[in-house]
Amino acid sequence: MSDLLGRVIAARLRDVPDFPQPGILFKDISPLLADADALRAVVRALAEHGRALGGVDLVAGVEARGFFFAAAVGYELGCGVVAVRKAGKLPPPTVHAEYQLEYGAAAMEVPVGVLDDHRVLLVDDVLATGGTVSAAADLLEKAGAEVAGIGVVVELAFLGGRARLAPRPFEALLTVGEPPTGA
Amino acid sequence: MSDLLGRVIAARLRDVPDFPQPGILFKDISPLLADADALRAVVRALAEHGRALGGVDLVAGVEARGFFFAAAVGYELGCGVVAVRKAGKLPPPTVHAEYQLEYGAAAMEVPVGVLDDHRVLLVDDVLATGGTVSAAADLLEKAGAEVAGIGVVVELAFLGGRARLAPRPFEALLTVGEPPTGA
Repeated sequence: MSDLLGRVIAARLRDVPDFPQPGILFKDISPLLADADALRAVVRALAEHGRALGGVDLVAGVEARGFFFAAAVGYELGCGVVAVRKAGKLPPPTVHAEYQLEYGAAAMEVPVGVLDDHRVLLVDDVLATGGTVSAAADLLEKAGAEVAGIGVVVELAFLGGRARLAPRPFEALLTVGEPPTGA
Repeated sequence: MSDLLGRVIAARLRDVPDFPQPGILFKDISPLLADADALRAVVRALAEHGRALGGVDLVAGVEARGFFFAAAVGYELGCGVVAVRKAGKLPPPTVHAEYQLEYGAAAMEVPVGVLDDHRVLLVDDVLATGGTVSAAADLLEKAGAEVAGIGVVVELAFLGGRARLAPRPFEALLTVGEPPTGA
């Protein structure tokens, strides 16, 4: 995306060391969400990614920060939205998937009955190792959707997450760092 | 709100008995979120509540389903948005508050530095007993904001939650049941 938008985003992220655990440098998006003009620019750019994919009819967001971007992008595109939630949060029936993270196993769910045969844009705030976002994409496909593409606000390229999302079209509005050697 | 919008919403809610615990009749909003036209009508009606309050400059959503409505309403109004999160989810520094629910104590947090002197519209999906929403409103005020008003998609009037939000202006797009006797 444009360097200008990247600079707008970068100026509204706050680095928080050792959150939520020691050794993690957390990207706090609260200042970005609270800035009306920056939020509008981010939502428009993610929506443009959806349009460039030939159109989508649902926007999915990963719990919980992804919900903000999914809803506003869906609204801009005139689409419905769907929640990819941590296991146990959605009422039954759900489609369920377990996946591995660096620090153990996790599970997520999507509702039954709203995804079949839909073209979905999956959005989230930050792409780090890609474990959660790739599991979310797999789950949406398991539930019957086509993941037309994936968009995130910030990509931490040094963690190599983008490679785990291939071959789905992927767009990051701001990329921080360089991909790992060999990626 | 209009009876038509209420009927649109009611037709896209799914009652789930005994979720998340026995005795609770859960209102599943997944079908409403997934329906582009219904979602658009809901977002516009909540945004109109914000305009009728004389304008707001931030929209706050209660974790996690409230994030969807806060983001889309904020986008429609040209406002920033802010997350009212369960304790421990936001990086420090936060403004913290504990509150009582039927089944014990809970705590929520908002970010420091984005709320001072802002006029905020607080939104959520369902108003039940009002414990969480009233605690969220109190927390926003503790953090320096003025809660200009509160809007929800569905109010379960028989639980009497509305009384706990007074005197803040309150709007529900769909009201289910009658207020408790004496309320």
